[in-house]
Amino acid sequence: MNSDVLPESVNNLIEEFAKLPSIGPKTAERLVFYLLKGEDNLALGEAALALKIGIVNCSVCQNFSTQQVCKICQNPNRSDSTVCVVSQPLDIVAIEKTGLYKGKYHVLHGVISPVDGIGPDDLEIESLMRRIDAHKPEEIILATNPNLEGETTALYILRQLKDHDIAITKLAHGLPVGGDLEYADQMTLGRALDNRQAF
Amino acid sequence: MNSDVLPESVNNLIEEFAKLPSIGPKTAERLVFYLLKGEDNLALGEAALALKIGIVNCSVCQNFSTQQVCKICQNPNRSDSTVCVVSQPLDIVAIEKTGLYKGKYHVLHGVISPVDGIGPDDLEIESLMRRIDAHKPEEIILATNPNLEGETTALYILRQLKDHDIAITKLAHGLPVGGDLEYADQMTLGRALDNRQAF
Repeated sequence: MNSDVLPESVNNLIEEFAKLPSIGPKTAERLVFYLLKGEDNLALGEAALALKIGIVNCSVCQNFSTQQVCKICQNPNRSDSTVCVVSQPLDIVAIEKTGLYKGKYHVLHGVISPVDGIGPDDLEIESLMRRIDAHKPEEIILATNPNLEGETTALYILRQLKDHDIAITKLAHGLPVGGDLEYADQMTLGRALDNRQAF
Repeated sequence: MNSDVLPESVNNLIEEFAKLPSIGPKTAERLVFYLLKGEDNLALGEAALALKIGIVNCSVCQNFSTQQVCKICQNPNRSDSTVCVVSQPLDIVAIEKTGLYKGKYHVLHGVISPVDGIGPDDLEIESLMRRIDAHKPEEIILATNPNLEGETTALYILRQLKDHDIAITKLAHGLPVGGDLEYADQMTLGRALDNRQAF
């Protein structure tokens, strides 16, 4: 629709931005016109082109890495006895920001979702099982998202591990820190009540 | 903070995205991880690098263009007798989408904003005056945004044109089409009342 009004290079970038999740055509237009005013478009373009250069999945934990074995898996200060299973690399970023976890990770790269045709074989579950058999960690934290697909995936892995002598845990549910009782949904508040702790 | 966890190329693109307006660090992370899964990063990168190649301001209306005189200014089916003055090229896109305007445009590339140190000399007002003197249009539509800076800019241009024999108009205020009386703010509803029209 804009083709008569805007130069082609402007339309191209608007189209590329609009392909991204949560960016609609209006936002895409605003972003491109912002870039037209400054010089940031070159840095953005180079960063986007270079994004995947040299990036592989870590052969141990399957996280994105620039080496065959990633920095976290190579870190001698992190314990091998705990493996935290997450659905995507971004979850590792979130957990690392807490600064509280000193074990290793395993990235599934997705969740079981029959609607989208994604089964256990499409995820990094086999590599997780091989890793568990080979290195016998003491604890597996199943840290998939607390939604239908995440819980299904966690339950599937739980079942695969039922004959293993290994502690299997999940993240606690409860009120968000700094959250307001009044605004908590009833599921969360219910779990917070069930799991109440002694002062 | 992520530098230990994520490859540098991933961090770089997150940083570039986070520089854009309305994109915070969390959104930037999500966008980059979306791009990591597909192949769109190359198209985005190339589009961003090529964004400004061959783009100049049209020598007549100052809109972004790939030619010295833009397609709208060259179009013989568009009347020279009306010039619609807008603050930025995006506004032209919005007006063109209505399909109702058949005149020409003039882009100010900003608004008068003393807080940001932007005065009339920083805008394309002089080129507008020269254009008016040279081509004597019959009507100038001052279509700056209906906010403080936009109104100030329109009033400034209005004053510059007070000795010219030329019709000066502005866009109508009123209820948005499809809008709900109940949700209209009092300023808008007041203007809609003031400007009420015969059935």
